[in-house]
Amino acid sequence: MSDTSDGPARDRHTAFRALHHGDRPLLLPNAWDHASAAALVRRGFPAIGTTSLGVAAAAGLPDATGDARDGTLALARGIARLPALVTVDIEGGFGERPEEVAAVAAELDRAGVVGVNIEDGRPDGTLAPLGHQTAVIAAVKERVPRLFVNARTDTHWLAAIGGGTPPSLSTTAERVEAYVGAGADGIFVPALSDEQDIGALADDLGETPLNILFTPGRHTYERLAELGVRRISCGSLLFRAALDRAVELAWSIAHPGTRTDLGRTADLPSYTAARSLADEFTGADPL
Amino acid sequence: MSDTSDGPARDRHTAFRALHHGDRPLLLPNAWDHASAAALVRRGFPAIGTTSLGVAAAAGLPDATGDARDGTLALARGIARLPALVTVDIEGGFGERPEEVAAVAAELDRAGVVGVNIEDGRPDGTLAPLGHQTAVIAAVKERVPRLFVNARTDTHWLAAIGGGTPPSLSTTAERVEAYVGAGADGIFVPALSDEQDIGALADDLGETPLNILFTPGRHTYERLAELGVRRISCGSLLFRAALDRAVELAWSIAHPGTRTDLGRTADLPSYTAARSLADEFTGADPL
Repeated sequence: MSDTSDGPARDRHTAFRALHHGDRPLLLPNAWDHASAAALVRRGFPAIGTTSLGVAAAAGLPDATGDARDGTLALARGIARLPALVTVDIEGGFGERPEEVAAVAAELDRAGVVGVNIEDGRPDGTLAPLGHQTAVIAAVKERVPRLFVNARTDTHWLAAIGGGTPPSLSTTAERVEAYVGAGADGIFVPALSDEQDIGALADDLGETPLNILFTPGRHTYERLAELGVRRISCGSLLFRAALDRAVELAWSIAHPGTRTDLGRTADLPSYTAARSLADEFTGADPL
Repeated sequence: MSDTSDGPARDRHTAFRALHHGDRPLLLPNAWDHASAAALVRRGFPAIGTTSLGVAAAAGLPDATGDARDGTLALARGIARLPALVTVDIEGGFGERPEEVAAVAAELDRAGVVGVNIEDGRPDGTLAPLGHQTAVIAAVKERVPRLFVNARTDTHWLAAIGGGTPPSLSTTAERVEAYVGAGADGIFVPALSDEQDIGALADDLGETPLNILFTPGRHTYERLAELGVRRISCGSLLFRAALDRAVELAWSIAHPGTRTDLGRTADLPSYTAARSLADEFTGADPL
């Protein structure tokens, strides 16, 4: 998957874009290490993303601070060898200046990655200035035009994790319009969950794919599809569910009767099957 | 946890040994990265191990080949900072010569790790010569006497993963006796599952703790306790269950109705809770 000749690389980029315009929305599962990425690909997902929370936590680091830069890039180089289309969450871009972010994007492109997420939320809970963020997006698109840039605005996300009041949709719409104008290929608004807002934003965006973070119990895939969402991300959900199952299964062994629904193990992959996940990293082209 | 002064270090080693002689067997959950280790500690497990399969697969590598050496040592240094007692699976010892394995053990001891697993199964499916393996165990105990050496014999394991016939218990007993003679602090026989064999081996071992790999559907914690088992490991089970839940949860989002028991997400740790796992790596002493 590190083939950077024009032919197959262009095909992979075309294929990834097409997944945003199929009959059904692109369900993008998010991996946090080589094993989760390989297992998702083996299960049949044609495209996978990464979760910055998961990647950071797996290394004992906090999310969204840039601390996980090296680990993220190393993981990206590894999972780009999988027979799948890979897009990488690079938090705020792992650099302050637009040229630095563009250099990160170029490195990922060389590794065979087809897309990136770039967020405007800062570690201190503020939003990057609009002019700065559009400069970052424009710099990445100028440097690596074929890379699918999913521009994430944290207008709703920062309010959600900070316990604040969600902003009006117009605040978000202003950011979204500016990012599309700067060349963003898709728009991601995590924590946007009101159906009317989602539908209105999807309408505004027209052909530009809207990406929504799946929230269990609040969303269904079918309803998001009806609202015009083109890409549905799992964010850190899979990572959190995985950790939860491991911990509760361990606890249930010594404390029978607790969370027994998580104790079902008859269908688990065997040791041998899990060991063979390493075989997925063969460099085979997915197309 | 990297304190290597005699006082607290001796206390930690004493505490870890004592966990093998409590009212109930030590249930040892096995982590594969910083996040799983921190989550297990947060759940309340006083001691944790690692799973070589999980550590290797998380890095895109095969298990039991030594390829995961550097990643294992880096992970060990990280999770030794958790407020818990940590024992590390070092496969065959990450070295051919006994002095090399002893050097690995000494490095882990300096990091604050209280125990290691050393296995006699080789990547080619054979057992290390008995004299070689006893020399390895003796070298480690001579170099780092306080380190709890859990000597693993793969007499049954190799047959189980290779699809062969399990050996007679006498084959295993010969290895076990030699390893105890060389100074092993505990004995681990993965894939030993016959209750009569387990009980007989536990009796033979007397005060030396017998460690059994928990097999869901075949063992219960209470029954293993009755048989005299002192330590019950999860091996790769938690890692495999975690991956399974992630993959099946992702699949179920776009394909409602499949494996819905894995789709229950109401009790999951939040983004904020998962993000705070990094806070567990504070260097606090567990005692």
